[in-house]
Amino acid sequence: MTPQRYRIDVAYDGTNFAGWQVQPRHTTVQGELEGALKQLGGRHVRVEASGRTDAGVHARGQVAHFDWPEKADRPDRLLRGINALLPDAVRVLKLRAVPDTFHARFSAVGKEYRYFIDNGSIRQPIDRFYRTWVRDPLDLEAMQAAATVLEGEHDFAAFAANPNREIDGTIRTLYRLSVTKKGPLITIRAHGNGFLYKMVRSLSGFLLRVGRQEVQPVVAKTILHSKLRTARVPTAPPEGLFLWRVFY
Amino acid sequence: MTPQRYRIDVAYDGTNFAGWQVQPRHTTVQGELEGALKQLGGRHVRVEASGRTDAGVHARGQVAHFDWPEKADRPDRLLRGINALLPDAVRVLKLRAVPDTFHARFSAVGKEYRYFIDNGSIRQPIDRFYRTWVRDPLDLEAMQAAATVLEGEHDFAAFAANPNREIDGTIRTLYRLSVTKKGPLITIRAHGNGFLYKMVRSLSGFLLRVGRQEVQPVVAKTILHSKLRTARVPTAPPEGLFLWRVFY
Repeated sequence: MTPQRYRIDVAYDGTNFAGWQVQPRHTTVQGELEGALKQLGGRHVRVEASGRTDAGVHARGQVAHFDWPEKADRPDRLLRGINALLPDAVRVLKLRAVPDTFHARFSAVGKEYRYFIDNGSIRQPIDRFYRTWVRDPLDLEAMQAAATVLEGEHDFAAFAANPNREIDGTIRTLYRLSVTKKGPLITIRAHGNGFLYKMVRSLSGFLLRVGRQEVQPVVAKTILHSKLRTARVPTAPPEGLFLWRVFY
Repeated sequence: MTPQRYRIDVAYDGTNFAGWQVQPRHTTVQGELEGALKQLGGRHVRVEASGRTDAGVHARGQVAHFDWPEKADRPDRLLRGINALLPDAVRVLKLRAVPDTFHARFSAVGKEYRYFIDNGSIRQPIDRFYRTWVRDPLDLEAMQAAATVLEGEHDFAAFAANPNREIDGTIRTLYRLSVTKKGPLITIRAHGNGFLYKMVRSLSGFLLRVGRQEVQPVVAKTILHSKLRTARVPTAPPEGLFLWRVFY
């Protein structure tokens, strides 16, 4: 039997998970997927994602890969078999055979995250697990101005939770960082060639401070140049964040 | 002190409620609202809605009224006070003083419900509590044809759970019954001058059968004329249903 690598596109509701990565005594997305594969194949198979997501963070388009002991005759049945063993909060949307050279993490050339904010004066009960509620009316133009400053190639050390632990350094390119509004819903879209640990929640946390007019948009420059993570950059709550898409 | 009647517009996530109406040993939306008012005012105040919603059914625009012992100096504070005592799954969106002649149920002249169907081959984890998942590809045109037959003034006895218990008879007017599709999301909109008990879920259940091509759209006519509730009209699951708006 020749092992076969499979790429899976995964969506999950992160509300009740301790994040992506397997941890003892916690329910995680990786743990659920590896559990389903073990039930199907009778042995442990490691599932490698494009990157971890934190506790409470959702995914519309997470990508992962695993090596199956042999090529499946019917990949559609493998997909359905996995989904049948998963809780409703996780679903494999696509499954396809890929060459061994494909690696969910190392082959990724970009990612898009979206951060959703319910900016109504009263928190909407519907979708409350998929949006961060911010009661104070946010200054959209200020947030957009700050986002523009942050776009492009920068050293984002000041927007990482553990900048010293980043193996590939702290320089990344944000192709796009946009802030749009539709009714009370504000959406932050972040598309870049890579993201540091908790970078999107840090960018969002900073943009929220700008939106509250606690700091001027131009301060983004000073913070970038400082390369220092300080209290000026809070980490926004996880529930509004979605890993939207991974590019290869 | 002169009592004052207040109208409230209420949104709720019905997932974990045993419906609107107070029931012993169950958590209900009415129970939560009356509990909050009792905490605020020190006595029991009855909250009357435009109509009950069943267990698991959501509301974007439920309307209710209650008589407060006196006119509130600051209605905005009363609103915030109520919301502060409610679980996140329920929110009063608006509160305003109304004359005693206003009655949430008897003054209503129409209602709009929406029923959301996730018709993808794989059930989306996000929003799964707000949509009914139907795996079989549904025939949209057939559903639309059946909906057109059901529009207008009819005796809807065959689409009610307990037609003999309807005090105001079983004739109602559906101003609009439409079926639209956007990606895998199918939306049924029902706007009428009134709805019998479980009527929207019955209409949706029938439209789902038509969509599965188990019955022809024209059968809607036969069922209407029969005035008999039979197994031909199943009750669709509650999670996809929203009370969208009440008209006065």
